[in-house]
Amino acid sequence: MPISASLKTLFAAAGLALLTATPAVAETSGDDAPVLRGTGDLGVVIERATGSVALVDTTEKSVLEHVDGFGDLSHASVKFSRDARHAFVFGRDGGLTRLDLLTGEIDGRIIQSGNSIGGAISQDGRYVAVGNYEPGGVKVFDAETLELVADVPADYETDEGETAQAKVVGVVDAPGNRFVFSLFEANQIWVLDMSGDEPEVTKYRDIGSQPYDALITANGRYYIAGLFGEDGMALLDLWHPEKGVQRILPDYGRGEERLPVYKMPHLEGWAMAGDQAFFPAVGRHEVLVADTDDWSLTDRIEVQGQPIFVMSRPDERQVWVTFAHPDNDAVQVIDSRTHEVIETLSPGDSVLHKEFTPRGEHIWISARDSDTVTVYDTRTFEKLATLEAESPSGVFFTYRAHRIGL
Amino acid sequence: MPISASLKTLFAAAGLALLTATPAVAETSGDDAPVLRGTGDLGVVIERATGSVALVDTTEKSVLEHVDGFGDLSHASVKFSRDARHAFVFGRDGGLTRLDLLTGEIDGRIIQSGNSIGGAISQDGRYVAVGNYEPGGVKVFDAETLELVADVPADYETDEGETAQAKVVGVVDAPGNRFVFSLFEANQIWVLDMSGDEPEVTKYRDIGSQPYDALITANGRYYIAGLFGEDGMALLDLWHPEKGVQRILPDYGRGEERLPVYKMPHLEGWAMAGDQAFFPAVGRHEVLVADTDDWSLTDRIEVQGQPIFVMSRPDERQVWVTFAHPDNDAVQVIDSRTHEVIETLSPGDSVLHKEFTPRGEHIWISARDSDTVTVYDTRTFEKLATLEAESPSGVFFTYRAHRIGL
Repeated sequence: MPISASLKTLFAAAGLALLTATPAVAETSGDDAPVLRGTGDLGVVIERATGSVALVDTTEKSVLEHVDGFGDLSHASVKFSRDARHAFVFGRDGGLTRLDLLTGEIDGRIIQSGNSIGGAISQDGRYVAVGNYEPGGVKVFDAETLELVADVPADYETDEGETAQAKVVGVVDAPGNRFVFSLFEANQIWVLDMSGDEPEVTKYRDIGSQPYDALITANGRYYIAGLFGEDGMALLDLWHPEKGVQRILPDYGRGEERLPVYKMPHLEGWAMAGDQAFFPAVGRHEVLVADTDDWSLTDRIEVQGQPIFVMSRPDERQVWVTFAHPDNDAVQVIDSRTHEVIETLSPGDSVLHKEFTPRGEHIWISARDSDTVTVYDTRTFEKLATLEAESPSGVFFTYRAHRIGL
Repeated sequence: MPISASLKTLFAAAGLALLTATPAVAETSGDDAPVLRGTGDLGVVIERATGSVALVDTTEKSVLEHVDGFGDLSHASVKFSRDARHAFVFGRDGGLTRLDLLTGEIDGRIIQSGNSIGGAISQDGRYVAVGNYEPGGVKVFDAETLELVADVPADYETDEGETAQAKVVGVVDAPGNRFVFSLFEANQIWVLDMSGDEPEVTKYRDIGSQPYDALITANGRYYIAGLFGEDGMALLDLWHPEKGVQRILPDYGRGEERLPVYKMPHLEGWAMAGDQAFFPAVGRHEVLVADTDDWSLTDRIEVQGQPIFVMSRPDERQVWVTFAHPDNDAVQVIDSRTHEVIETLSPGDSVLHKEFTPRGEHIWISARDSDTVTVYDTRTFEKLATLEAESPSGVFFTYRAHRIGL
């Protein structure tokens, strides 16, 4: 039930209530007073232009309220607390802001660096890690108090023999209360183990030139980093760390032709369907398919533009693709069995992100320049709702609290 | 939000609201007053002897309260509403009871048949289906009002040419707002499609003798029923319904020797790790391993007793096994890579069920005759907490709201 609706009913019900004289309960009557409700169908939409967040309800398909005060959200991401009550919003300005989804209030905010790109929450929910550009490194905070727990500068030795700090990208959580991340200038992947009394770092060097983003598979086994400085990708098998970082998909990247690349694709949200991985080609109008047993390339699927996000519906039957400029007003749907494009949708201008409901019946798609988030039925492709939001970008639902790597 | 729940709380809340006349804070001090909190770390433990349910908190590793009034819970199971606020408890007496996890109150209860075995909640969260023994069939209820939406008798033609009703087992939800279930005496699998204006049933006949339990894989693709009347299993590929039901694992079952079987193993919770499926042998002290590409048997792992539940840790690195009498005081852990038993634990007498926290850092194990639920760290096997419960059986956490087939 949307907050506004239930409040309205509260006011109406108040007369009756005085007569009952029951023990107090949590629902209150203030205009902005929180309502007792489950948090399993809540989510947030980043409103990048205004530094605000829209709090949404996926059952009612509605915006509950807009919350201000998150700073620069021009490249923001979100993680959720293990009780699915709080959202941790990572802002471009180095801000780490905690939003209480039930009260709609910011109940914690720190500026923890000059410039950050995202973060992760530990398996046990106790720690929030933030990857930083300026200065480079990872800081780990207590999820309850936002106090600094560990500070891991991304120090590396340059070719000139000097010590510098690298930009940190691709921060993910891994089983065993670990965080994994990549160092852009240092060509390294680090594993930060928070399970013991003291944080421990394991470093993998020479993993490839300029890792710029990364993902971890849903079982927390494979950490895969995309490379900006060369073709191919770097893979760390966390079940076999003794093997070190391996190179996979040697032809993956911009290639010899150096096509104009409007935007490097995102790696988070790679579509896995059985033993197939669907992922965005760089610069080409293609979605690529690899066999996850040996990471060999098995197919190239022609699509409408340069793909950015390639995400599989939770039942793995469909793969949904968003695109870079100038094709970013379209979203295409691929059948994961036949590899055919079965639908092209036009949710609005500058489509930036999309999120499935956890069992996959709906998808929410943000269109920044249309100031809308559109909800589709993924079976019929029917438009179910169009919600207003200020320059919406990322869409994140609370089920992520319960998934490795999300 | 179910209407009755919200009204009850509304009436109660209004008194408080009028008296305080301030923008009141939601957390209150009343002894039994509900507290504003996220529902992502809640769960329930079935207390079978007393017909009660223990409401638990997986962050604090504690029992919040015990709630009575669920009837006969001697073989009970639980599903959660899509907002993770309510638990639907399916009792052996045909009772369908809805528990509000925030107030700790039962806010809906119907006796919908004489004897039922379990149920499922639809992909969109609107429908709750119950599979019944007596009389056989499936009833579908509105999740908010508990009103009957569809009544599907399990009619079939007996060998004598008469119409009878079969016991319904293995009810699961499948993508596309469908339910799938098996008819014990009728040797059939039915698919009930709730996505249109009218419910539609598709019947698969002669699927094998006496299906007694079933599971659906995490992506909602394969529905697999165990057979009581013969060896082998029945598999329906929901991506290829035109192929009909196929038979797999022809040697699976009690075999020629007809070993004494203390308890038929449960199928829900089959451990899937990559393209391996780990599942309980029938009557033998073995966990079996099959290749999910062709469902061929690839290994037999010797364990301490007749396995009942074989479940994989969410990161697929470990497989945890409980046993039938007389070995039901032990739990064994198998390494999914090496297939070796790496740990044997003794959580108490008559271990009945276990549940992982959604990212897998902990496991909760119920021991009926010890009246305890024990929480272990799955990495160190350290005992983290021992909670008291009355003859505990099933343990269910709210993350299931967001998974296909759970």
